[in-house]
Parts: sequence; structure tokens; C-alpha cells
Amino acid sequence: MTSSQTPARRAVHPLDRDGLRDRVNAALTAFMDHQGDVLGDVGEGMVPVTAALRDFMLDGGKRLRPGFCYWGWRGAGGVDEGAAGDAAVRAATSLELLQASALIHDDLMDRSDTRRGKPAVHKRFEGLHAESGWRGSGESFGSAAALLLGDLCLTWSDEMFSGSGVEPAALAAAKPLFDVMRTEVMAGQYLDVLEQAMGGGSVARSRRVIRFKSAKYTIERPLHVGAALAGAGEDLLAAYSAYGLPLGEAFQLRDDVLGVFGDPAETGKPAGDDLREGKRTVLLALAAERCSAAQTRILDELVGDPGLDDAGVKELRAVIEGTGALAEVESMIDTLTGQALAALDAAPVADDARSVLRNLVEAATVRKV
Amino acid sequence: MTSSQTPARRAVHPLDRDGLRDRVNAALTAFMDHQGDVLGDVGEGMVPVTAALRDFMLDGGKRLRPGFCYWGWRGAGGVDEGAAGDAAVRAATSLELLQASALIHDDLMDRSDTRRGKPAVHKRFEGLHAESGWRGSGESFGSAAALLLGDLCLTWSDEMFSGSGVEPAALAAAKPLFDVMRTEVMAGQYLDVLEQAMGGGSVARSRRVIRFKSAKYTIERPLHVGAALAGAGEDLLAAYSAYGLPLGEAFQLRDDVLGVFGDPAETGKPAGDDLREGKRTVLLALAAERCSAAQTRILDELVGDPGLDDAGVKELRAVIEGTGALAEVESMIDTLTGQALAALDAAPVADDARSVLRNLVEAATVRKV
Repeated sequence: MTSSQTPARRAVHPLDRDGLRDRVNAALTAFMDHQGDVLGDVGEGMVPVTAALRDFMLDGGKRLRPGFCYWGWRGAGGVDEGAAGDAAVRAATSLELLQASALIHDDLMDRSDTRRGKPAVHKRFEGLHAESGWRGSGESFGSAAALLLGDLCLTWSDEMFSGSGVEPAALAAAKPLFDVMRTEVMAGQYLDVLEQAMGGGSVARSRRVIRFKSAKYTIERPLHVGAALAGAGEDLLAAYSAYGLPLGEAFQLRDDVLGVFGDPAETGKPAGDDLREGKRTVLLALAAERCSAAQTRILDELVGDPGLDDAGVKELRAVIEGTGALAEVESMIDTLTGQALAALDAAPVADDARSVLRNLVEAATVRKV
Repeated sequence: MTSSQTPARRAVHPLDRDGLRDRVNAALTAFMDHQGDVLGDVGEGMVPVTAALRDFMLDGGKRLRPGFCYWGWRGAGGVDEGAAGDAAVRAATSLELLQASALIHDDLMDRSDTRRGKPAVHKRFEGLHAESGWRGSGESFGSAAALLLGDLCLTWSDEMFSGSGVEPAALAAAKPLFDVMRTEVMAGQYLDVLEQAMGGGSVARSRRVIRFKSAKYTIERPLHVGAALAGAGEDLLAAYSAYGLPLGEAFQLRDDVLGVFGDPAETGKPAGDDLREGKRTVLLALAAERCSAAQTRILDELVGDPGLDDAGVKELRAVIEGTGALAEVESMIDTLTGQALAALDAAPVADDARSVLRNLVEAATVRKV
């Protein structure tokens, strides 16, 4: 189902049951207050850093990874009561800082100028440089700032996790999964950059990138971390993989479709940005495999052209639809979400979490929330 | 005392008592073997990443921070026996991965082409891109790779720390110090970049950068982390600060002197690289304060000139010596090392650690080992 077929926009994201989103935001606010104090002790010059990171952390984001982690915990029998419940929410919230780091560094690598409709961090600091009339290259200053701010978020993520207040044995059980999640997402990012450099990516290679960069990182590993925080064993971890990996792949395929066909007002990114960047998506790999000679020439000429205009985006959309690649990706999304639902039905998951995870199959793939 | 006055080169670094350096290297090797397996599972494309990080971690480095952490632990009564001793060495070794991340990202920000006489990580991957005949910008590929490899080292640092095998209560006591160390070094790096952009840095502002970027990060906090791993209280932490902060400042002042007057064969960096980069050191800030009008013109013209040649380096050296700035920095180093020694004499530190920390005052400031 493409997004335009969704009957109505949801007011509340399925992950946001029991006021989870507000609790995640409150935990982030408290954590950023604390870090603002630490940075304040370093000196006056840190004020714009604190402000930029607060804005970045608190202005948006779907809180998907904290949500999956929290519901993975609940599904494994975690009881959300009192201090233990708040500690679990804090541990889950720490994944949002990892995601912030990935986004800040990703925008820097891609030289994407905007994020959620606002200047990306490197552009914000480039702007500060210009306003302040500082010396040297504003672009270099912005890049250095974004590199360091992303590094801060990365270290703060494990600081928030290990300082969440979850009891030490549960934390120790979950930390190796937290660790492998981080290595996998960075390795997946590298594979993504490598695919773009190597070019001519096959569908299989593009799917491997998705697996590590998205499916494991966004869904499977957050569920695993949550499950381990509740003391779950191998069986539930395996069930979460069987649910999370196909769902995560579907999620990314939907994102790739939106990156080409999405409405900028919905995505917060200029139309066709993925095409301009030359992002090696499954959608494009499928289109390339099915192209006529004339269509191949259009792809070769326009994909990855930084100056690609609206007419070029339209032309590429026509090629991608014309080859049948769009329809095939939609069909893959259907198959994958079906697998995720079947795995969930068979999983030994607590009932309230099961209903949330079921609703997520639709929400994560339609991405209209 | 300048480095040329050192009577003879030491064969063994003072931190390297009881075979510490070999144990740190063995711990790093085992850890990198494990991460190589994790990256290997992601795919064939990760092979150059594993190789680059192994080379970077195992080819050099003075292991200063693991050394201070270990001796901070011993000084606080840590007993190096059996599994507990090995666990403490592993926890200390984790600081080397933090340092690797800082260096990889620093070289990227500064666009320094070499590190320890070899290509910096971004240059190594730029070279891989060229050899492989890949598409797009080799510089962008190298930058993205260095960004991600630095991120990997950053996450691996806390993974190695929390997985060191140190018992949970000691680890929990030390983690907040480990955390604040990371925030401080990144904040210090940002202040450094900011100082360069703002220009005209005062001696006081340059010393603040040193405090956060170097003194706390290289010496004080590693000692604190080690002390906390041994269950030390506030008194010993305060004593380590009184010893570590002046020593760390002296250490950085020595480094700044070597950055201008050092022999490339010793420093592993081209002569005068700090001048070419326009690094805002205390040495330069002092020179600028004491310059005649003619000397000011020379500084303004040559400092920060990326094309600065040997003759220019010579000219700047003459100005820095001529203003008396070099002599004053040497005198500051003497004062600071005197403070560090006095603090150490008064500190409640175990004897074997005391003798190591005493020898370090010379070694860390002379930097000829």
C-alpha cells in the first residue's frame, strides 16, 4: 500500500501508548539539562553547542528506537511500575541519542543541508560562523562542530544507558546487544558509502545494506536490548528477529519509496533528494536491472546529479514506475510485513506489547504518523 | 629544560613498568580480533576497515592514558593479581580506543595527511578509493570512512570498558568519571576549534583549551577512573587532580614547543605543522602579546598559511624565540612540574605507583621516550 492509500492520519503513533512519547521526551529533557550544566562548566563558548543539541534532541523525531526497545521490554514481561519502570524508559531513551549522532554525522557525510525542515547541524554552525564574523572557512567550522556534536551524542547514549538506573545484572545482560547494535549500524553506514562508491549495486547488495543499516538497527536490536533488560532468553530474541528483520526491511523500502515519490511536506526533505544524492536503494537497483537502453541512459545521466531539478525528478520517477520497480518494491513490502505478522503471531510475547507490535507493522511501513 | 638537554633516551617508558605496555597491546589485540569477527559477519566489504583499525591501534601510540589509569588504580591500592588484575588492565586499555577516535576525527577536521609517519585514516581510504577505481570523490569517501571508523573506536572504547571484567560495583563507581572525561575532551576540542575561528586568543583562553582538551583528558581523568576502579574516595581524587592538572598542562606546553621547534623524526609530523595549521597555542599567544609591530606582521602573514615552507618556519621560530615566548613557556613548564611533584609528595598514594608517577613528571614533559 502506498502512503496515499492510507485512510486517515493517526493522531497518536502506535508506539506512543501509555504516554510513552512524553516520558521519553521528559527523560531526554532531564538528561540534556544535566549535560548543559557539564558543558556550562567548560566555558561560555559552549552555549551554542548546548542549544543546538537541545533543539536537535527535543524538536522532533519519531522516537522509534526507544519505542521498540520499550515494547520489547514490556513484551518480555517487563513491569512498568515505579522507579524500575522509569529506569527502563531511560534505558530505552538512550537509543535516541545514538540515532541523533548517526543523523548528525550522516548529514555531514552527505552534505545534506536540512534535517526535519531545519538547517542540519553543520549548516547551523556554518551560520553561526558567518553571523559572528569569525575567521577561516565557515564550512570547515561547521563540519568540525557537527563532527564533535555527533561524538558527544554518541558518548551520551551509552552514558544515559549505563546511568539509567536499571539494576546492574539486567544492564550487564543487555549491554552486549547494545554494543553489537552500534557496531552494526556503523558498519552498515560504511557499506552504504562503499556501495555508492562501487556503483552498479545489485538488489542483493542493496538489501544487505538495509539489513545492517536499518532492519537490525531500528527494530531488531532495540527489541533485543529491551528483551535483555527484562531478562529474556534466546527464544524470545529469536522471535523478535523473525518479526523485526522483515519489518525493518519493509520500513526501509517504504523510506526509499518516499525518498523518490514522497511529498517534501511529509518527509521534511526536498523532493527527490535520494536521487540527487545517488543513493543506492533497492528501488533503484531494481529499476536499473529492468531498464531498456534508453531508460538506462536516463538513469546514468540523472541519478547522482547534484543539480537535478524538478523536471529531472519527474523523468526519473517515470522511469522507475515504467520499469515496474515501484510495483515490485510495494509487493516486497507486502510480503515482508506478512512475514513479520506471522512471526509475531507465533512469538511468546505479552499481550499488550503484542497489540502494539502488530499496529507497528502498519505504522512503520506506511510512515504517515 | 628543553628536550635537547635530556641526557639520554630512555629505553623503557616510565609507565611501562611490570610489562604494562605489552599487556595493553595484548588486550587491544584480543579486542580487535573479536571486533574483526563482528565486522567480518557484516560482509566482505569490511575487510579494509578491520585492517585499518588494527594497524592504527597496534602500530604505535604511547599508551599514556591506559598507563595513567592503571597507575591511578595501583596508587589507590588496586592489587594486580590474577583475573582482577587483567580486568583492570583491560578497563585501562579502553582509553586507548577513545584516544584513537579522537585522533582519527582530529586528523579529519584538521585535514592532517599523516599520523605517526603514516597516512591518516582519511588519506588511507582516499588511497583505497583511487586504487580501486571507484566512482565519485575520493576525498568524500575518505572523509566518510574516517568519520565512521572514529565512531567505531568511540563506541568500542566503552564496550571494552564495560566488558572489561571489572566487578560491577567498581565499574559503576568509575563510569561517571569515564563519562565526564569524554564530554570534557569533546568540549575541549570544540573550544579549540572555536579559538581558531575567533582568532586573537589570549593566553588565558589558550590555557583553558589545554585544561579541558589535554590536562583533564590525558592525565587527571585517567587517574580518576583508575582510582574509582579501586574504590578510592574524594581525597585521593582531589590529590590526583592537584598532581594531574599542572602535569597535564606542562605536557601540552611541551607538545606545543615540539610542534614548532621539534624534529620531524621525533614527532612524526612535518616540521612546523602547528604553525601551518595556525594552532592557537599558549606559545603563540605569548609571542603575539610580546611582539613588535614588525614581528606582528610576520606572525599575521605566516601563521596559518597552509603553504608555509621551511624558510617561513625558520622565520617564525626566530620571532617566537626573539619575543622571549619560548623561554617563558619553558619556565611555565618548570613551575607546573614543580607543582605536580609537590602535590604527589603530599598525596596518599601507594609507594610503587608513587615512583612511577614521579618519573612521569619528567617523561611526560620531555617527551623523548
